[in-house]
Amino acid sequence: MQNTVEIITIGDELLIGQVLDTNSCWMEQELNKIGFDVCYKTTVGDNEPDILDAFERACSRVPVVLVTGGIGPTKDDITKKTLCRFFNSSLVFNDLVLNNIEQMMKFNNRPLNELTRQQAYVPDNCEIIQNRLGTAPITWFERNNVVLVSMPGVPYEMKGAMAVDILPRLKNRFNDRECILHQTFLVGNYSESMLAMYLEQFENELPQNIKLAYLPSYGFIRLRLSGKHPSETTLKQQMEDQRIRLINYLRKDIVSETDQPLEMLLGKNLRKANLTLSTAESCTGGKIASLITSVPGSSAYFKGSVIAYSNEIKQTVLNVTSSDLEQFGAVSEQVVRQMAVSVQQLFESDCAIATSGIAGPDGGSDDKPVGTVWIAVACRNKIISEKFNFSQCREGNIIRSSNTGMLMLLDLVKDQLKIFP
Amino acid sequence: MQNTVEIITIGDELLIGQVLDTNSCWMEQELNKIGFDVCYKTTVGDNEPDILDAFERACSRVPVVLVTGGIGPTKDDITKKTLCRFFNSSLVFNDLVLNNIEQMMKFNNRPLNELTRQQAYVPDNCEIIQNRLGTAPITWFERNNVVLVSMPGVPYEMKGAMAVDILPRLKNRFNDRECILHQTFLVGNYSESMLAMYLEQFENELPQNIKLAYLPSYGFIRLRLSGKHPSETTLKQQMEDQRIRLINYLRKDIVSETDQPLEMLLGKNLRKANLTLSTAESCTGGKIASLITSVPGSSAYFKGSVIAYSNEIKQTVLNVTSSDLEQFGAVSEQVVRQMAVSVQQLFESDCAIATSGIAGPDGGSDDKPVGTVWIAVACRNKIISEKFNFSQCREGNIIRSSNTGMLMLLDLVKDQLKIFP
Repeated sequence: MQNTVEIITIGDELLIGQVLDTNSCWMEQELNKIGFDVCYKTTVGDNEPDILDAFERACSRVPVVLVTGGIGPTKDDITKKTLCRFFNSSLVFNDLVLNNIEQMMKFNNRPLNELTRQQAYVPDNCEIIQNRLGTAPITWFERNNVVLVSMPGVPYEMKGAMAVDILPRLKNRFNDRECILHQTFLVGNYSESMLAMYLEQFENELPQNIKLAYLPSYGFIRLRLSGKHPSETTLKQQMEDQRIRLINYLRKDIVSETDQPLEMLLGKNLRKANLTLSTAESCTGGKIASLITSVPGSSAYFKGSVIAYSNEIKQTVLNVTSSDLEQFGAVSEQVVRQMAVSVQQLFESDCAIATSGIAGPDGGSDDKPVGTVWIAVACRNKIISEKFNFSQCREGNIIRSSNTGMLMLLDLVKDQLKIFP
Repeated sequence: MQNTVEIITIGDELLIGQVLDTNSCWMEQELNKIGFDVCYKTTVGDNEPDILDAFERACSRVPVVLVTGGIGPTKDDITKKTLCRFFNSSLVFNDLVLNNIEQMMKFNNRPLNELTRQQAYVPDNCEIIQNRLGTAPITWFERNNVVLVSMPGVPYEMKGAMAVDILPRLKNRFNDRECILHQTFLVGNYSESMLAMYLEQFENELPQNIKLAYLPSYGFIRLRLSGKHPSETTLKQQMEDQRIRLINYLRKDIVSETDQPLEMLLGKNLRKANLTLSTAESCTGGKIASLITSVPGSSAYFKGSVIAYSNEIKQTVLNVTSSDLEQFGAVSEQVVRQMAVSVQQLFESDCAIATSGIAGPDGGSDDKPVGTVWIAVACRNKIISEKFNFSQCREGNIIRSSNTGMLMLLDLVKDQLKIFP
């Protein structure tokens, strides 16, 4: 039990859907790296009974409680007051904190007002950690071998304090931690249940201290091995053994042995193979281009796209023949292949992804229901096309088409890398 | 206490920082709209004692408990088993669920395997709600006047179930709620603190039962009036009075009096004015097209885009002159205006949005630092262009450019509607 953590996030904004909590996700990752396991996450509003209750409960079940939020200078922030009640503290004025605040205000060219000055009043029975990026000090309490740390909710202040002060102190304070390792594989070509059935034996033969988890994404599955052991050396060897076993099971269906977005993985492989990319998108409406260009540095391999949402654009800009459009319809193998080849030529790119489908909710027919999508990918002279039946949901169809297109091209690019490594 | 909710999210992936919980934020917003207040949010891993404990505690403090996650077909998902223990249920086979699963598999062209088939075993003392977008059924339990609903963690399945089934049922089940009304205004041209200072008097003169909240978005602010009152008639009149007061303060800076995505608002106005749209995107990389086409029915007014990520494409496909590119650079008024006019002509659309900027993190210079973005919008013969200095963050620059471009065009389209209503 020495290495378990509860995160308590405080703030009304977290309970009315006004602010998305990205802090705790980051904290979990960082805590995991140094061998701490987050077991519970609790969010309460800015009110004393609920905060006290959350403190009470957390301190009774884990040795480390990390609290974010509610320590700003305004009226609605009551975490400091509540900490005083919980730990029977009195507030005392701290000159070092005032000094830190004064420096902060000077740097930002702002006058020190009374509300900000009051942040230098701190509980008298805790350790004070200076906030290097803001005015609210961090407080570290200990009682009955439980550590409770209160820090700001502002993401960059929290991250600064965690990285420089809190994580190193935790590591030092709890030095009999178990080692925790995770490895995630991206797996294509399986549904979640198909994969689980196929891996039943693999899973049954895992050592007790290593667990397998399935995280279905749109169009692929993230498969995670998580291990815990007192010895890092032993665990590393165990994880490596299981990695090799898993590869033997899944071989080519493993898209990646690291947990990263497909657009990043595709980008890295394009860069490695020195290939450029363009897209011709109908039903995905720019989603693929938008994902690809969300990656910093993508201009090195991404040339651009034609979003051909109407049939006339498919003809005028992408040279799809009107006879094919009439005979086979826009959602057809003939059309999607022409789109891929045309955009490859127009943008003088080595590779292309083209999509044409019925995203829904309207536009479906008996012959081609909502969710019918044709995808073609090209890499130099090689072109592959495939028809899919995704789902009833517009958002799902767009994202599954986008991911599937990227996975299909990734396959082709990897083949290229095998021929010309 | 009749209208308070606890959200319990289940899954190891939520505690090791592998998956960012965006579900609960969305749920809170939707619950608020129909008069339910989320008071607690708890996350536990895939282990029985912690799940049971969370159920126990939630059912003792709120009348509505909404649970997401842990109901997939694989071994690591144990929510169903744990629900059975908590509610003393036995599993029974449900033909309607099997039927739903079979249809789902048939639609996706996948065989029905044993693991998936087992999802048709459901607890015998709850109401079953069919999952319209996946294979795991939703279960609705009631005990001692507390409702507990277990639903999938997959975001689009959860959203589908909430919107179509769970929210309407909750509204129906708890009909002695206080009336809660929200009205959100989209406000342009202000920073959050500027707006807060400008509205100080407005805020001070609000009735005690009506609150004002600021939700800064990228490029605009969502300003929310929230009122609570036992009488709907009284509250409606109060809200209407405050709406009129607010409009007197803000007038033309109110972009919309309803809370809807900009892409939807722009789409509605384009439709009303009978105008079509295309985009020419450089730094936004397809984000605008992707947002526009996320709206069902957008094919009625959206013709398509050219994503011109490289200078050569700006020349070959969008006819930007090489002399302008050389003299002024790709991120310039001259280039972005040519992009807008060219795509308008190429796609024969009435309107166009064009972007060219430095999204970062690389590519900035002293003259044009990261965050410098030129945007041009055209509506028939009218064209407007403007330079912006956004932020250091790639994602922020892309989304702020996209929103700002849509806001600029919205202004032009509204002018058209005034002339030809």
